Amino acid sequence: MIFSVTILGSGSALPTSKRLPSAHVLNAHERLFLIDCAEGTQMQLRKLKLRLSKIEHIFISHLHGDHTLGLFGLLSTYNLLGRHTALHIYAHKELEPILWANVNFFVEKLRYKLVFHALNPKDKECIYENENLYVESIPLKHRIPACGFIFREKECVLNIRKELIDRYELGLSDIASIKNGADLVSPTGELIPNAELTYRPFKARSYAYCSDTLYSATVADYVKGVDLLYHEATFAHNLLDLARQTGHTTAHQAATVAKDAGVGQLVIGHFSSRYKDVTPLLTEAKRVFPCSFAANDGDTYSIPRQRL
Amino acid sequence: MIFSVTILGSGSALPTSKRLPSAHVLNAHERLFLIDCAEGTQMQLRKLKLRLSKIEHIFISHLHGDHTLGLFGLLSTYNLLGRHTALHIYAHKELEPILWANVNFFVEKLRYKLVFHALNPKDKECIYENENLYVESIPLKHRIPACGFIFREKECVLNIRKELIDRYELGLSDIASIKNGADLVSPTGELIPNAELTYRPFKARSYAYCSDTLYSATVADYVKGVDLLYHEATFAHNLLDLARQTGHTTAHQAATVAKDAGVGQLVIGHFSSRYKDVTPLLTEAKRVFPCSFAANDGDTYSIPRQRL
Repeated sequence: MIFSVTILGSGSALPTSKRLPSAHVLNAHERLFLIDCAEGTQMQLRKLKLRLSKIEHIFISHLHGDHTLGLFGLLSTYNLLGRHTALHIYAHKELEPILWANVNFFVEKLRYKLVFHALNPKDKECIYENENLYVESIPLKHRIPACGFIFREKECVLNIRKELIDRYELGLSDIASIKNGADLVSPTGELIPNAELTYRPFKARSYAYCSDTLYSATVADYVKGVDLLYHEATFAHNLLDLARQTGHTTAHQAATVAKDAGVGQLVIGHFSSRYKDVTPLLTEAKRVFPCSFAANDGDTYSIPRQRL
Repeated sequence: MIFSVTILGSGSALPTSKRLPSAHVLNAHERLFLIDCAEGTQMQLRKLKLRLSKIEHIFISHLHGDHTLGLFGLLSTYNLLGRHTALHIYAHKELEPILWANVNFFVEKLRYKLVFHALNPKDKECIYENENLYVESIPLKHRIPACGFIFREKECVLNIRKELIDRYELGLSDIASIKNGADLVSPTGELIPNAELTYRPFKARSYAYCSDTLYSATVADYVKGVDLLYHEATFAHNLLDLARQTGHTTAHQAATVAKDAGVGQLVIGHFSSRYKDVTPLLTEAKRVFPCSFAANDGDTYSIPRQRL
């Protein structure tokens, strides 16, 4: 089952010819989750052949235009495409009135249900779950209220080795116990340990999106051990003062978060338009956290499924 | 002096991977005029290396999202770039409240003057002029009030042949008369016709933008004789009923407008996303008006300067 992140926009507030502002898509088990929705998001989705209809949930980190201004066009496009399934938007409560003002103005007769969920930018909260996945919002520190998001696969149940069901004549209650980790005493009195009865489950995968934010050690606590961390790195560390003034993080700091949190890999992005080449930022990050990558628009990072 | 039109977006409401929704740029004597501003306009401007700072006037044909939703991002970008010069927006009066609502929400401390000009969608009006150019808005027929725009160079004054000023010892009043078309009687009594004293002036060039609109013979009257007509051709003529229902024009009808108006050349665009290949629409148009072209995003049509 797929668990991958596609970067639609890796730039910051000023789009360049190579980098659009912020938007990511998580593909978790063939359901797409959109994270931020800058201007141009719907065009990128089409260009990258990501099916718009597979998106039912949109998570908006904060209400700056470079994270939100693609929303009104996308909502209008859904209407023109004849969408009927509900669309859920998770964002700070202040988005709701301007969202509806724009929808009422620009979308002719909204034909699908648009459900607004107000985020709590002060605490970690579970904001969504389905059978495979749950999503937490975490507080970030920006000029305005901002949330990061952590997408976590649920722990898999143990899968029983099917050929053993007949061999040991297992009933439904045996199977349920084994799936919950129990060993088996066979009809001959032999003790068969659970590990011999089941396949090792798959490791639950996780992805955290942290943008925009000041450097914060608390963020490292929240994202501890995630497989993939996307963290903004708007500036190189020689512009630390500017990063602080504007509520942003340097590449060095983003890598420090990754290191302190012990994540699997780090992807930095939300680069200031001043960097035509982001190699120096990547080099800076790698010095602190070697498994760092610099985001490019259109890149996909897949996390392979591995047994525990 | 340059007079050219660059097509930023040649698609209609649903963007495709090849066509963005509507936006054009007219370069008239190195000043850029933006006509419509769909989502993605600022990215296209950057990609095509058209300098954002050269735009001081934005003309919005009507208030559907596929002609306007790039405006808020562009206005925000201007602010981030430190713009100080005024920006003029010409649009239907109903845009003003939602424009300000979005600017107040998404633009942090607007630092330049934003001047809103309400269009009259019922009559032809001159809405702007400078030393080289004037712009007329003309009524179109769409589902909501809509205006086309005609950009016309002003007639050039006659330029005197400089070497004759000394030869005939011309004073300021002589020069003024000659520039107004007068002949000259030389000190020896010789009559020198104006054509020998002056260079032939340049023909005033013109460009008309007509989108979105139903087919209308009145439009042909308004755009009579323009050098370049961009006319929407959302559908092929076999979808005439759909064109009528949705307030759009077929390629055949667009070419009929061009023919009836006797324009120099026709560019059709605003193509429905159903057409992966617009060759059939172009063929249809060419049958009626041979000098027809199909718009592509990024195309530039230059009208060369010619003496009368």
